[in-house]
Formats: sequence, structure tokens, C-alpha cells
Amino acid sequence: MGYIVGIDVGGTTIKLGIFPKDGEKPVAAWEIPTKKMDEIDLFWTSIRDAIFEKFEELGLERSELLSAGISLPGPIREDGFLPKCVNLGMGACVPGKILGELLGVPVAAGNDANAAALGEVKYGAAKGYDNAVLFTLGTGLGGGIIENGRIIAGNRGVAGEVGHFVVNPDETEPCNCGNYGCLEQYSSATGMVRTAKRLLKEGKIPTKLQEEGISAKLICDAAREGDPLGLEVIDTYGKYLGLALAHIFLTTDPDICVIGGGVSRAGEELIVKPVEKYLNKYTHIANEKCRIVIATLGNDAGIYGSAAMAKALID
Amino acid sequence: MGYIVGIDVGGTTIKLGIFPKDGEKPVAAWEIPTKKMDEIDLFWTSIRDAIFEKFEELGLERSELLSAGISLPGPIREDGFLPKCVNLGMGACVPGKILGELLGVPVAAGNDANAAALGEVKYGAAKGYDNAVLFTLGTGLGGGIIENGRIIAGNRGVAGEVGHFVVNPDETEPCNCGNYGCLEQYSSATGMVRTAKRLLKEGKIPTKLQEEGISAKLICDAAREGDPLGLEVIDTYGKYLGLALAHIFLTTDPDICVIGGGVSRAGEELIVKPVEKYLNKYTHIANEKCRIVIATLGNDAGIYGSAAMAKALID
Repeated sequence: MGYIVGIDVGGTTIKLGIFPKDGEKPVAAWEIPTKKMDEIDLFWTSIRDAIFEKFEELGLERSELLSAGISLPGPIREDGFLPKCVNLGMGACVPGKILGELLGVPVAAGNDANAAALGEVKYGAAKGYDNAVLFTLGTGLGGGIIENGRIIAGNRGVAGEVGHFVVNPDETEPCNCGNYGCLEQYSSATGMVRTAKRLLKEGKIPTKLQEEGISAKLICDAAREGDPLGLEVIDTYGKYLGLALAHIFLTTDPDICVIGGGVSRAGEELIVKPVEKYLNKYTHIANEKCRIVIATLGNDAGIYGSAAMAKALID
Repeated sequence: MGYIVGIDVGGTTIKLGIFPKDGEKPVAAWEIPTKKMDEIDLFWTSIRDAIFEKFEELGLERSELLSAGISLPGPIREDGFLPKCVNLGMGACVPGKILGELLGVPVAAGNDANAAALGEVKYGAAKGYDNAVLFTLGTGLGGGIIENGRIIAGNRGVAGEVGHFVVNPDETEPCNCGNYGCLEQYSSATGMVRTAKRLLKEGKIPTKLQEEGISAKLICDAAREGDPLGLEVIDTYGKYLGLALAHIFLTTDPDICVIGGGVSRAGEELIVKPVEKYLNKYTHIANEKCRIVIATLGNDAGIYGSAAMAKALID
């Protein structure tokens, strides 16, 4: 039957998973450290070696490897070209081609947030849906758009860059991207902390939260217990994510919206409900809305999505 | 070689065009009046009769008809189902199936704004591009999203409903849809007039424009001559359309944005430039932006797009 490999490259570790071609779960999933970019050849060969060693360990023949998929934290175009990857310090290349030559099988490449979206659609919370949008809420805010079961990547690699939707043009503090009022400034872990600090400084809303040591988790815990300032931060999170989702909904009409990333562990009541409220508010025109659910694959969404890209190459 | 037919249904007239299968222009394009919905059978047979009569007139055999496409001013799902068409007073049906049985060939159906987008991509201003977005600026503001050469329709038929992006949540006057701050309230012909009237009432910006008889055309003419209030209306138009385009750009990464509809006749300087300015402002994250051009097919975009849907059925 054969095997496919999903590879998810992060700044410090590379996650790998070996999947039976038609399986639902990996037979092995593990991590290796990400090699520095001043050893770029080692970066690529370390991935090859890790896969072949694991194959040997599992008693699999190299000929049973059918294809692989790799996701990277950078803009990868529809044609597989990566202009540059600032997060890794990687220059222009065609990742699928390099790794394909090393492995001797076809390799697909994609952006990590897009791959995570595809993972949830093919193996996770959005299984059975062909049209979906994924928000990954972590330190930053990533996104991925799936249409007809395929990642929309675009020719500039900016499809799904929803974290930089300007949702509040009146914002006075800059986003990391240099712009003002990006979604990421309100609806990521960092964004929640920023909103909370701002409200604490204003001092108008009662709270047991304190600026020192504040985190998205503490804010969510407080909100769950009814803390007024915590609830206000959650409402701001929901307002802007709901507005962004409304615009995506009226663009590609996804069937389902999946919310993943560390912040999503706060659960349905805090993470889904506030977004639903504002999606309704901002889409009067639509009688029926898209479902909103929490991701189920956690940190493994990237290897699942990369496996799905690998599978699409040979199906 | 055979022929295909594009049909564009409006509230008062139905436009039709007969195209050689691989041709660039129709061999005949004409209109018939739209039958009232209390004669729903007549509505459909009048379209069939108009096509067959024209075939006879042109000396074509009915067997040379290969397929047809029909666009309607309502939400048509990916699977061809129309839940209802408020603009026509038409109930739930599958337009492609009804007309297909009458014509004896496959018939595709789609939303009119989506079809216009496909028309510009296959035959008009966006020819050669597979990923595009079209804004149709008329009394209202319609949109269509093309990805990989196909209309994104969605399962609720709201894909491309960009006129109801809430771009100004602080707006106090309601949109026709019941919401506040929709794009259509600023960047359509009606929207320009609304902005101008509001500014005239405020009386802060010098102008030669007067409330009585004001129109989008008069506003554009004044702006072209440097009228400060006219220019302010154009800036507001560009700000909100640029913001909406930025969100679409960061969602599906279109290569090109086509601006059509009556308002677009005001030309590049007033219609394209202000949108470019704000697209740049709202997409810091993207080094390269999408092109913005004015539509070339005018009122015929619908029959061209419907012909493209017809062609896709047999290609």
C-alpha cells in the first residue's frame, strides 16, 4: 500500500509523521531540531536522513515511500516557489524540488498555516467539508483557506494572511507588520494581552487581573469566572475575529471555520461563542452562516496537512 | 464546430448572446423583455423560443447548439440550486435543469455578478488571469471571485457578496440589508450620492455641487475638475473599496481586480487610483499587490460569463 510523509518545519524543531497512504493516523510521529541556515545543505539532508532512519527502524522499505509534503513558515506560491522565508532566514528556493531530489519521490510544499487548515479539513475538525477557513491563534494569528478541498495559495503567497486584515483603522499602536489595527493585534495571545494591558491602564473596568505576569491563559481563566475586564478582552477578541470571518464568509462562503492554536484551548464558550455573535452581527445578508468549531489536531495539524498535500500528489 | 449561448437575466430585460464554441465574440447578441413571474412557464419558454428563433434567423441548425449558461440576480449554489430570487420574485428551483430540458443541451446557472466576473476573466479585462476579483459598481455593489478559472459560488451562495462587507461599524444610517456600514453604502453610485449629501449637509467642504439632482456622474465630473467635496467623496469611495479589496487580497490572493458597472465609466484616475492608494495602505504585509483595471465588457459581461459557464460544461 505504501506510505507518505508529512513534514512541518518550525523555527526550532521539525515535526515529521509517516502515514499509511490511506490511513487516518501516523504510524510514527517525531521531531528533530531545525538546523541553522548557515548549514543549509544539512537542513535538507537532516530531513532526508530522519525519514530514512525511521523507515529502517519501522522495518519499512524505502521503495514503500510514495510522496512527501513539507510546510514552512513562509509564503509559498501556487507553483511551489518560496521567495524567502524570513522566519527561518531561508532564501529563495523551491522546497519541494530540493527535497524531492533527496528523497526520490514527489514532494509538495506549502505555507504552515495553510497546511494546518488542510490538515483539519482532511483529518480533523473539518473532515467531510471541502470549503473551510482556519484561524491559528498563537503568538501571532495565521490563517488558511481551503476551497474545493485544495489550499488557496495564490501567486504572491498572501492567501490566508488574515492576521493582517486591518479591522480597526483607528488603532494608534503599530502591528509587527508596521500597519495599524491588524486583526493579530486583538485576536492572538499577544493581542489579548495587549488589550488587557490597555484596559488595565485605563482603569475603568473592575478586575482581579494584574499587569505583571499577565497572559492569554490568565485572561481566559478570569473571563471564565466572570471577571469584567477579562470578559471585555474576550469580547474585543470576538468582535474583530467575527468581523474578519464575516468578510471571508462573504468572499469564499466556507462551510466551516476552524479555530486552532494555543489560545483555542480556552474552549467553546470563550473562543467560539463571541465569534459567532459578531459573525451574525456582520452578515445580515446571509440567512445561513458557517459553522465555527475548535481544531482537533493541535500541534500536529501541520504534519497532517503536509501528509494531505503528499497524498494529493499521488491520488 | 458548434455554438454556445450565454443568457443574462435582469429584472426588465434578458440579454442573450450566441457564441461560436471557440470564438471571442458573439455572432448575435440581443435582448427580450423579462416575463412576469406569474407566468413562470412563459418565462422559461420565452428564452427557449428566443434562442431557437435566432438560430433559424442565422441559418444555424438546432443540433449545432452545444450548451448554454444562464445568470440570474440571486444566490445560486455550487450545485446549481437557487433557494429563491427576491429580485425576480422567483421561488426555489434549479434553473439549469429547467432550461436544459427545454433546450435539450446541458445548461449551467450562476449568480449574475459572479458570471460577470467570469466573463471578464475569460473574454475581457482579466483575460489570461486565473485568479481574479470583480467589483460591479452600479446602484448596488456586486462582486465575484474567480479562483483557478472557476467561479467560487459556495453552498449558501454568498461568495462574492462583497457589497455587504461591514467596512465602517460606526455608521449610523442603515444599509438596504438592514446592517450598518456596508461597503455598498460608500462605493456604489448610490453610496457616492449618500456621502455627497452628507457632506453637503455638513457644509464644511467648499463645492459647486448642489443636493438637487445630484448623481454619481455629476460628483465624478466635479472631482475631475478638482472640486474639493467631489474629491472627498471619491476618497471615501476609494478608502472603503481599498479596505475591502485588501481583505479579499489577503484571503484568496487574486492576480487582478476588475472594476466594472456604470460608475467605472468615470475612468482610471477617479476609479482605480484611489483604490490602489488604500490597497497599498492596508496591505503592508504584501510586497507585491494585485493589479487593478477597469472592466472592458460593459453590460455584456453577463452574457460573456454565461457563455464561459456554458463552455466549461463541454470542454
